[in-house]
Amino acid sequence: MIESPSNPTVRALHLLSTSKGRREQGRFLVEGIRLIEDGLASGELPVTCLYNYDLVRRTERGQMLLKQLSAANVTLLEATERAIEAASDTPHPQGIVAAFRLRSVDVPPKPDGSALAVVCDAVQDPGNLGTLLRSAEAAGAIGIWLTPGCVDAYSPKVVRAAMGAHFRLPIISSTWPEIPAELEKLGIPSANLYTTEAGTNISYDEIDWTSPSALVISNEAHGLSQDAREAVNSARFISIPMSSHTESLNAAVAGSVILFEAARQRRVLQSRA
Amino acid sequence: MIESPSNPTVRALHLLSTSKGRREQGRFLVEGIRLIEDGLASGELPVTCLYNYDLVRRTERGQMLLKQLSAANVTLLEATERAIEAASDTPHPQGIVAAFRLRSVDVPPKPDGSALAVVCDAVQDPGNLGTLLRSAEAAGAIGIWLTPGCVDAYSPKVVRAAMGAHFRLPIISSTWPEIPAELEKLGIPSANLYTTEAGTNISYDEIDWTSPSALVISNEAHGLSQDAREAVNSARFISIPMSSHTESLNAAVAGSVILFEAARQRRVLQSRA
Repeated sequence: MIESPSNPTVRALHLLSTSKGRREQGRFLVEGIRLIEDGLASGELPVTCLYNYDLVRRTERGQMLLKQLSAANVTLLEATERAIEAASDTPHPQGIVAAFRLRSVDVPPKPDGSALAVVCDAVQDPGNLGTLLRSAEAAGAIGIWLTPGCVDAYSPKVVRAAMGAHFRLPIISSTWPEIPAELEKLGIPSANLYTTEAGTNISYDEIDWTSPSALVISNEAHGLSQDAREAVNSARFISIPMSSHTESLNAAVAGSVILFEAARQRRVLQSRA
Repeated sequence: MIESPSNPTVRALHLLSTSKGRREQGRFLVEGIRLIEDGLASGELPVTCLYNYDLVRRTERGQMLLKQLSAANVTLLEATERAIEAASDTPHPQGIVAAFRLRSVDVPPKPDGSALAVVCDAVQDPGNLGTLLRSAEAAGAIGIWLTPGCVDAYSPKVVRAAMGAHFRLPIISSTWPEIPAELEKLGIPSANLYTTEAGTNISYDEIDWTSPSALVISNEAHGLSQDAREAVNSARFISIPMSSHTESLNAAVAGSVILFEAARQRRVLQSRA
């Protein structure tokens, strides 16, 4: 039973809340029963797992998870609530935290149909990035590209907000000079990169999203970066029409609204085929 | 110059971070230049305003705002950064905080066209409720109804996330026995109350949102309340189709996706008329 917050495993897990710790250990922190289940369901096993028996066994799901982890020979370490709190990024972890390997994701394989991709251009709020990961996956995107100015996708807040999308959606760190070529390989011409810009006359739902296309989400405060401006043709600036007084939507909400319009158009096309 | 965190005005503003304080004073806390501007733009004046001259005059917008407030005879009190921090709900307020009167909003007037309404059924996350307020306004809803289980719409976190929607969108506190009749008066028949339910076969975009209708957003963890279940016909349960592995979307994102589908259908109808 691990009791001390200064236990080496506890400290190693705690360091995964920082970019440096994740880089050095090549792992990221996953908290709670549900997210660890998501990892297993995607065929990934934690490297280390710290749990509090009293807390985890309270639910049938918790008991099932412990059995699965144990059957898979994962290093399972029993710990006190206090030790788990020290390893975790939240004040009230659900009694189980785990370290998973950081996946090095290559550009995803070219899809059969027309690809839908998401590019985050210096998205800095962890909640926004997590929500975009979740929405991109749900809307059927083939992957999400992150430019260097983005918040680290594996920071615990992003992981919590993404609800397991980290295990299922390819997350590609790349730079603007490379992104258009990477998308081109997946069948997305650089002419089909779209982004929102306030005051643009083209409404997002006028776009033909059934063609291979990518949606670029810009920084919450500063808008599109100079690099992104050079990559995205200004003819591809779109907007979401709103009632007069509202200036803008939250970046993650705006992105989600557009991604689900793309998904809707693709469904309509399929149902006609 | 107010310097002490225990100054009575500072303490009164600080108490507005609690439901009890807001109820007793009949006011709510608005932080930052932009939100206070939004209040003025909607014709509302703060009762009290605490500002730090050095911080606010840094920007032209800040200077303009001080002039406007002063011209409107608002009680403007200069304070130290420390005093403003003590009055505020955030660790780094932008140098200005104000108390606005809580509006008692009646059911909004019946609109000319067909009404779109939002009902929050025990939505408890402040960020979600704020985002829903912002999206409901942007999508052209006539008002948002909140059941007693919802987080207080005037708590500082909700106010921050809603980006000024509090000044522009009618926010109605009501209970399930009353809501259907209130909506009916606005032309929304109770048969047109829709809500998302996982596993439902009717996709949200198959609904005719150009008719008067209301979207019910359920609690993030527990789903629809029993009272809501009695009010919403189960034939009106809808879902957002998603790629296989994702279980659900964030409540505010799901609500926003549906509200903007409603707005889209209404635009398409108008452009045909």
